[in-house]
Amino acid sequence: MMNSHPAGAQAPEFDFVLFGATGDLARRKLLPALFDAHAAGSLHPRGRILALGSQPLAHDAYLAMLNDEVLPALAGNAAASAWQGFLDRIIYLQVDANADAGFDALAELVNARGAPVVVCYLATAPHLFVRICEQLARVGLAGERSRVVLEKPLGHDLASSEAINAEVARHFAEDRIYRIDHYLGKESVQNLMAVRFGNVLFEPLWRREWVRQVQITIAEELGVERRGNFYDGIGALRDMVQNHLLQLLCMVAMEPPTSLSEDAIRDEKLKILKALRPIRPEDVAEKVVRGQYCRGAAGGDPVPGYSSEPGIAADSRTETFVAIRAEIANWRWAGVPFYLRTGKRMQSRVAEIVIHFHDVPYPLFPHPLGATPGNRLVITLQPEESIRLYFLTKQPGDTQALLPASLDLQLTSAAPRVRRVGAYERLLLDVIRGRLGLFVRRDEQVQAWRWVAPILRAWENTTAPPKPYTAGTWGPAASSALLSRDGMTWHEEM
Amino acid sequence: MMNSHPAGAQAPEFDFVLFGATGDLARRKLLPALFDAHAAGSLHPRGRILALGSQPLAHDAYLAMLNDEVLPALAGNAAASAWQGFLDRIIYLQVDANADAGFDALAELVNARGAPVVVCYLATAPHLFVRICEQLARVGLAGERSRVVLEKPLGHDLASSEAINAEVARHFAEDRIYRIDHYLGKESVQNLMAVRFGNVLFEPLWRREWVRQVQITIAEELGVERRGNFYDGIGALRDMVQNHLLQLLCMVAMEPPTSLSEDAIRDEKLKILKALRPIRPEDVAEKVVRGQYCRGAAGGDPVPGYSSEPGIAADSRTETFVAIRAEIANWRWAGVPFYLRTGKRMQSRVAEIVIHFHDVPYPLFPHPLGATPGNRLVITLQPEESIRLYFLTKQPGDTQALLPASLDLQLTSAAPRVRRVGAYERLLLDVIRGRLGLFVRRDEQVQAWRWVAPILRAWENTTAPPKPYTAGTWGPAASSALLSRDGMTWHEEM
Repeated sequence: MMNSHPAGAQAPEFDFVLFGATGDLARRKLLPALFDAHAAGSLHPRGRILALGSQPLAHDAYLAMLNDEVLPALAGNAAASAWQGFLDRIIYLQVDANADAGFDALAELVNARGAPVVVCYLATAPHLFVRICEQLARVGLAGERSRVVLEKPLGHDLASSEAINAEVARHFAEDRIYRIDHYLGKESVQNLMAVRFGNVLFEPLWRREWVRQVQITIAEELGVERRGNFYDGIGALRDMVQNHLLQLLCMVAMEPPTSLSEDAIRDEKLKILKALRPIRPEDVAEKVVRGQYCRGAAGGDPVPGYSSEPGIAADSRTETFVAIRAEIANWRWAGVPFYLRTGKRMQSRVAEIVIHFHDVPYPLFPHPLGATPGNRLVITLQPEESIRLYFLTKQPGDTQALLPASLDLQLTSAAPRVRRVGAYERLLLDVIRGRLGLFVRRDEQVQAWRWVAPILRAWENTTAPPKPYTAGTWGPAASSALLSRDGMTWHEEM
Repeated sequence: MMNSHPAGAQAPEFDFVLFGATGDLARRKLLPALFDAHAAGSLHPRGRILALGSQPLAHDAYLAMLNDEVLPALAGNAAASAWQGFLDRIIYLQVDANADAGFDALAELVNARGAPVVVCYLATAPHLFVRICEQLARVGLAGERSRVVLEKPLGHDLASSEAINAEVARHFAEDRIYRIDHYLGKESVQNLMAVRFGNVLFEPLWRREWVRQVQITIAEELGVERRGNFYDGIGALRDMVQNHLLQLLCMVAMEPPTSLSEDAIRDEKLKILKALRPIRPEDVAEKVVRGQYCRGAAGGDPVPGYSSEPGIAADSRTETFVAIRAEIANWRWAGVPFYLRTGKRMQSRVAEIVIHFHDVPYPLFPHPLGATPGNRLVITLQPEESIRLYFLTKQPGDTQALLPASLDLQLTSAAPRVRRVGAYERLLLDVIRGRLGLFVRRDEQVQAWRWVAPILRAWENTTAPPKPYTAGTWGPAASSALLSRDGMTWHEEM
């Protein structure tokens, strides 16, 4: 992440081997991200995309599919002019994880070119990860120049995740394994690092003496859609908390690293994960809210409850909402609640980190409207990215009244000409360039699983079902109660 | 200052007795400020302005003079429509400080109306202050409802200033004496209080651990103009440092007051003045730069040196420039240099306070352009008012480079509809309303004179002349050297 390469510097020559090239992730995220990098001139001119799928598609049929399903979603006129050049990079190959032939053909193709970087992106079902790695090793594509990118979910719990990690580790050294968490690629998360560590302004404030509470929310407006079958075996804790929310918590809470090198940053994140106060099974009911959406509305239209969604058992106890009161047991953060929250079918789609500072120790100025909105720093990741500082300024004119105000620390308006780089685009370029900083190290993953394990166990051992909440709301009432016990409220309720 | 009255609330009925009504200050500042308050509806409809001058002018002739010399400078069409109503408030009266008749007539006029507030504004030469106060007392206009406003210079040193104070105090209680310092009425200085004490954001930063240095500059582009005769007996130290610069220093450095009441704030300012480390005569050469401008340029045109200005002796040693390295001996500020600077015939007209924060303890990000511009808070009082925070943000896009950025904490752009209230307008309204917070208390003034006294004494006792500097520059080279010895530079040279 943190290297200081000039914007748009070209990545080295590569072969990007995309497993799952006909899948949803490839079409919606990965290929558009690669296209953006291509159109921006960030890709080496000889870089290829070897699109692998289990379907017996002709190369032209695959390109036709991209024409139909990827091109229309790309923005702008620039897209059309760059599109053909992008297609020229692509070679479709039918590969079945359990058949050698496809891998042999792949290896021949890759070896014929001899690009210095081979990225193997596993956008497939996780049960194929181990088999694919074995095959890659067999055909000599797990060597020094190869990197493997793993998408979540990487296992179902600590044991299954470690089983996959151990198998992958037989073929790929840890510094060639890229566990992707696209939230870390967001511009606003990057800028949070710059704001914290590029300035002294926030450092004295960034601690228990001045921070009252932190809220991290990833709220989706969508339900499970067509992923019911998959999702019902997973739930929100595994799908969102164990990875995304804990990673964002680390970015907020970490100590200043000694450098921006990948391991310096990941060492600090790991320290936070290790410092997370364990939630004992007997405390789960108090500190964790588990919810499941019922019939309600989304975008003004009625929508079914979770248990009526296709592929979901009527008596499913899978959670579609989690709120957690976490604490970090170290000198900087002791006693500061970190509220984590994620859910499907929430009132709106928003991902944000809110740092609430303490009120002034003793108010001198009369507060506007009788309210006392403390200072806040709000890092918004979705739907738009921004970092805003909320504070009070003097109302202009012959008065001493204060006026709530907010300032954009990201200055998007000040630099409107600069193209925004999407999270996937940045992360894929990082893989090609060999930058591990924004990817999750194995020990981080282990530690995150360890922390969520007692919650999973408590839920298995309880007869209490998830708390119902109406689709299109901010979750069960217990979520608000989790904060109101501490005298706090969720940001959107302020 | 700090009361929370609603914007534009009307002041009580008053008689505003303006001594020196034909003078420069009255025409350029006071009458326009009263007009603005009138046009904004801030003045009681029956409030009168009793304009006193020593010239035997007919009332109509005085109004005609205002028509010619004040009206044209007022901004906007609104001015014209409100102007006649403003003139209706004015009564011109010939008053000679040494003749009883004018004061008798004044008293009759005031007593006939019986307004609850009588403001006596002494915009005259200071040698008349005592005589005017005696006359006011003689005719019964120094009573409970009367307030006296004193303009600088209030004396020439501690002894002469205290002599005036003692005489005025014979007739007016301290809480009816308004020693005006118009810099304290500036919106940006007010907002500095709001930013500091309405938010927690700056409190942890506002101390020696995080502030590396503070610079306070009041630079004028003009020379002595036609005031040479007056100025040559005064000099920059008495004219600007003893009052304005030290008052601004107090606003920056004061501890949070226990309330916004006038004495709570002035108590804290006094504590700072008392905590200023005395500059011993033997240290003056090291810590104070005394300059005088020579021939140079202003606005592209050649201008004469100070000693060639009308009314100035060719061998005058009066300083037109002062720079001082001050220190505050308390726990919050020990070791932090406060650089004060003022001058005539500087490169541009600017008044600003710059808080330079320390650099980050250990730089992680590569700095743009190889420079390391630390975080700064810049409060600009002239030519435009603003409070800007300078910091570093992430350069947007696929890069980790930082980008210098600045944010307007005053949000003037966010509230463009609100009329700006000028410093004099605010202060005159404060007098009418009986608010002393933004006026200098006698003990503050005493303390400020005490602090500059050793500098004056050292200059009297040295044979060294002021250091010459070319008109249109930032002062003598010794001014830059004063900072470079500490490894610092003036803000405009960064």
